[in-house]
Amino acid sequence: MTKNTKVNAAILIIGNEILSGRTQDTNTSSIALWLNSIGITVNEVRVIPDIEGTIIDTVNYLRKANDYVFTTGGIGPTHDDITAQSISRAFKLEYEIHKDAFKILEAYYEQGEFNEGRQKMVWMPRNANLILNPTSGAPGFNIENVFCLPGVPSILKSMLGGLQNKIVGGKPILSHTISLRTVESEIAKSLTDVQDNNKNLEIGSYPFFQAGKLGVSIVIRSEDQSKIDKCSKEILNFVDEKKIKIVDR
Amino acid sequence: MTKNTKVNAAILIIGNEILSGRTQDTNTSSIALWLNSIGITVNEVRVIPDIEGTIIDTVNYLRKANDYVFTTGGIGPTHDDITAQSISRAFKLEYEIHKDAFKILEAYYEQGEFNEGRQKMVWMPRNANLILNPTSGAPGFNIENVFCLPGVPSILKSMLGGLQNKIVGGKPILSHTISLRTVESEIAKSLTDVQDNNKNLEIGSYPFFQAGKLGVSIVIRSEDQSKIDKCSKEILNFVDEKKIKIVDR
Repeated sequence: MTKNTKVNAAILIIGNEILSGRTQDTNTSSIALWLNSIGITVNEVRVIPDIEGTIIDTVNYLRKANDYVFTTGGIGPTHDDITAQSISRAFKLEYEIHKDAFKILEAYYEQGEFNEGRQKMVWMPRNANLILNPTSGAPGFNIENVFCLPGVPSILKSMLGGLQNKIVGGKPILSHTISLRTVESEIAKSLTDVQDNNKNLEIGSYPFFQAGKLGVSIVIRSEDQSKIDKCSKEILNFVDEKKIKIVDR
Repeated sequence: MTKNTKVNAAILIIGNEILSGRTQDTNTSSIALWLNSIGITVNEVRVIPDIEGTIIDTVNYLRKANDYVFTTGGIGPTHDDITAQSISRAFKLEYEIHKDAFKILEAYYEQGEFNEGRQKMVWMPRNANLILNPTSGAPGFNIENVFCLPGVPSILKSMLGGLQNKIVGGKPILSHTISLRTVESEIAKSLTDVQDNNKNLEIGSYPFFQAGKLGVSIVIRSEDQSKIDKCSKEILNFVDEKKIKIVDR
């Protein structure tokens, strides 16, 4: 299930709780790490409020600009969960009871527990494909290249594995990290030279504090291991010359 | 320094390390909490890669669509730090040595330590206003309504306080949280009724897991404390009727 062209995606985090700062988003990182592992580059992430018009406009923009769009949040049972309805409008599809989702939740809950609130979670765009939820029953859904996942991080994570065969990735994006006991300014010039020697490869430089000491992680990213190896060697050369210590991180 | 109209902002996180999932962004939450406390609503957050054209286009869009824009990342000394140069191009301003920033860093570093790498950090758009950095010397900068901050969370946080008098906020956005030992579907209908009774106020419902137990936090947000109090009372009424336990969170 791989092809050679670049495959990209956008992540759309829907939720006032992230914009207010009350909740720290962790779903971006979970989805991005998973996408990278199957060869999909994340082009952009947006966080938007629970406002129907904003969701519609943003989804319609992102789904045309990217191979895939992954949304999180807004598919629960409460009044502020408006993602499924908004996605229906974005695609001009009926918002209706999804029969298979209904069957799943009817079987999931004890008799009498599948109440009105829970039934809201089976309303979806017509003909949506379900994304199964091994943690808490209520499925996510997919229409064309848009995949709608819940906002609760543990539930979201448990659903990513089941998505793998619905997505066509590219070559896995490989990376190698070299962490150094130094500061960025000490290596900036040498690193620029290495980047100039290795144009088709991404070199990132990230300062860190660890156990009270400063350090820099250099991250090399490419689809081609031999390019990473060549670049890594050039970095280790100047690290050696400058007598910089390599550290674990 | 307050006015009565709504004031809004966008946050722009610049950095491949967030898009790859390698680094978990925490700056959004820090900036958003601070903005909320001074009466500024965050309309949207975007995360974009270290690509000049993307930075220019995104900044030019966001600065017109919002009262304020806060960027993080890309103002360090290495080759992948291209925010200052990109912002200069976005505003069609010269990218040049900022004399005051030069003086600050010349004084900050020991003699001979203010090397070529570090000098890159004083290149800014012409006539930028400096944002002082009490942690590590190198200032951020501000042009019109765009404020450029570093990506390292501890440094960024230390710089927010100094920004307060450059920003005109609105009425502080107040919030009240009621955490319950229940699941969303049990309260969904009652909560919808309360929201219908309290149109000009935002009620969010957020499931959580804590110490192995499920719960829901209801967050009421408004600029008007009396509206929050009225709404809170209505929620506590149905909580009491349903014999749901209130929990600390």
